[in-house]
Amino acid sequence: MTSETRLRVRYAETDQMGVVYHANYLIWFEVGRVEHIRSMGLDYKSMEQLDGVGIAVVEATARYKSPARYDDEILIKTRIAQIRGSVLRFAYLIYRASDHTLLCEGSTTHVVVDRAMKKAALPARFAEAFRAHHIALTTD
Amino acid sequence: MTSETRLRVRYAETDQMGVVYHANYLIWFEVGRVEHIRSMGLDYKSMEQLDGVGIAVVEATARYKSPARYDDEILIKTRIAQIRGSVLRFAYLIYRASDHTLLCEGSTTHVVVDRAMKKAALPARFAEAFRAHHIALTTD
Amino acid sequence: MTSETRLRVRYAETDQMGVVYHANYLIWFEVGRVEHIRSMGLDYKSMEQLDGVGIAVVEATARYKSPARYDDEILIKTRIAQIRGSVLRFAYLIYRASDHTLLCEGSTTHVVVDRAMKKAALPARFAEAFRAHHIALTTD
Amino acid sequence: MTSETRLRVRYAETDQMGVVYHANYLIWFEVGRVEHIRSMGLDYKSMEQLDGVGIAVVEATARYKSPARYDDEILIKTRIAQIRGSVLRFAYLIYRASDHTLLCEGSTTHVVVDRAMKKAALPARFAEAFRAHHIALTTD
Repeated sequence: MTSETRLRVRYAETDQMGVVYHANYLIWFEVGRVEHIRSMGLDYKSMEQLDGVGIAVVEATARYKSPARYDDEILIKTRIAQIRGSVLRFAYLIYRASDHTLLCEGSTTHVVVDRAMKKAALPARFAEAFRAHHIALTTD
Repeated sequence: MTSETRLRVRYAETDQMGVVYHANYLIWFEVGRVEHIRSMGLDYKSMEQLDGVGIAVVEATARYKSPARYDDEILIKTRIAQIRGSVLRFAYLIYRASDHTLLCEGSTTHVVVDRAMKKAALPARFAEAFRAHHIALTTD
Repeated sequence: MTSETRLRVRYAETDQMGVVYHANYLIWFEVGRVEHIRSMGLDYKSMEQLDGVGIAVVEATARYKSPARYDDEILIKTRIAQIRGSVLRFAYLIYRASDHTLLCEGSTTHVVVDRAMKKAALPARFAEAFRAHHIALTTD
Repeated sequence: MTSETRLRVRYAETDQMGVVYHANYLIWFEVGRVEHIRSMGLDYKSMEQLDGVGIAVVEATARYKSPARYDDEILIKTRIAQIRGSVLRFAYLIYRASDHTLLCEGSTTHVVVDRAMKKAALPARFAEAFRAHHIALTTD
């Protein structure tokens, strides 16, 4: 119930310390999140387009363990850590793929919002899939 | 009829070559463009919100002369280079403020579009100000 | 002992939800941090250039309270929350300047590292200033 | 002699107009360039690490034809358009993969520089591969 996705570090993502600038991991979390939803047969894009709601980030945390470097292949492992009403939490582990070094662990907490950024309900097909996924996870 | 605005190079804008990553200059052009419009007593934000149109970029060019570095104070000089119907061109000169070294020169060409990204007319108050500005410029 | 700095939201910082993309707040934290160090009469750039050390981020947290929007003027309040050997923690409050709405609160924890990304000592002039600042803060 | 690489549009790459912010195409050009070099059996990372030189961007142009949108799969076609001493020019065509709509065409011109950002010679193994590639291209 953990999905995996890969990407390659872009030159634009490095900084003058010669490593990936730390804010980029939050963007990678988002890549992991979107692909995790896709791995359930769903599509975040359609949540915004068809259902008119999105999942706004209300909290993000990242602990940086080892630096990613330019051209590294990155492995992102994503799971849903919590579902409670309109609140969702995703957890991420980011590795360098070549040697499976843990680079970063983090989480993002989201609330479902409509186009006016007001709290809304998670569309049923997402709620069902997320809960099935989460129950499977917590009963492993 | 050329406006000036300043910003400071952010760590996030550097890359592992130890200089500002080149795509960031297009973001600085945008900073110059918005402040140039503000210097005319107008407000790009209101163009999108009140008039329901925006100026989509259809072409961008940049020639990089000397690298900007972390924490440099940057001076952006912006002018309107051309107005022709729904098409606008802005020109930019980007300097390091401390020694007035030219770092980059560039231009962006825009077309006025509505929310569906279809070509639209430039709202009258912008058209008048831009033309007045441009005539003043070309008759200097 | 809290410094304040301001910036204006760039178009590039927005996303299709019509608000600032959440990863950008970590970049704004960095703007606050650098200006906070400058407000003590020091200069982060010189720490890297003269002392050959930097402060790598080992943890970042952000809680998002209200969305920032394009062209908003942003007020960043920064303070040093903790100093313990080579470990530093900064805390941030980010407001919309126009109505002083709290948009985000967060913190970043850093470790001093040399050019090989190995733990190093904080240069004396920074250690003294940071401690003086922190003691003043905690005895307020 | 044209290489192809693919990526998916990230949420972070969109702006409040609901399309990809234009500066991101320059980052995608870089993705195309790096993968193009890799397709020749070479490795840009090693040019910086082993040869101590890099290819700094001296000019970039982009013409935007149609907007990319969130979650679109993007196809980048890259070729070397010119080699003249230490100067290289790459040309790019960017398509939406699903319907092969041309989104952007552009080019970047580079000069080989050493770590002090001074002009340098292209390392022999890159020069040979790039020339072989370019001759093949121009005699097609």
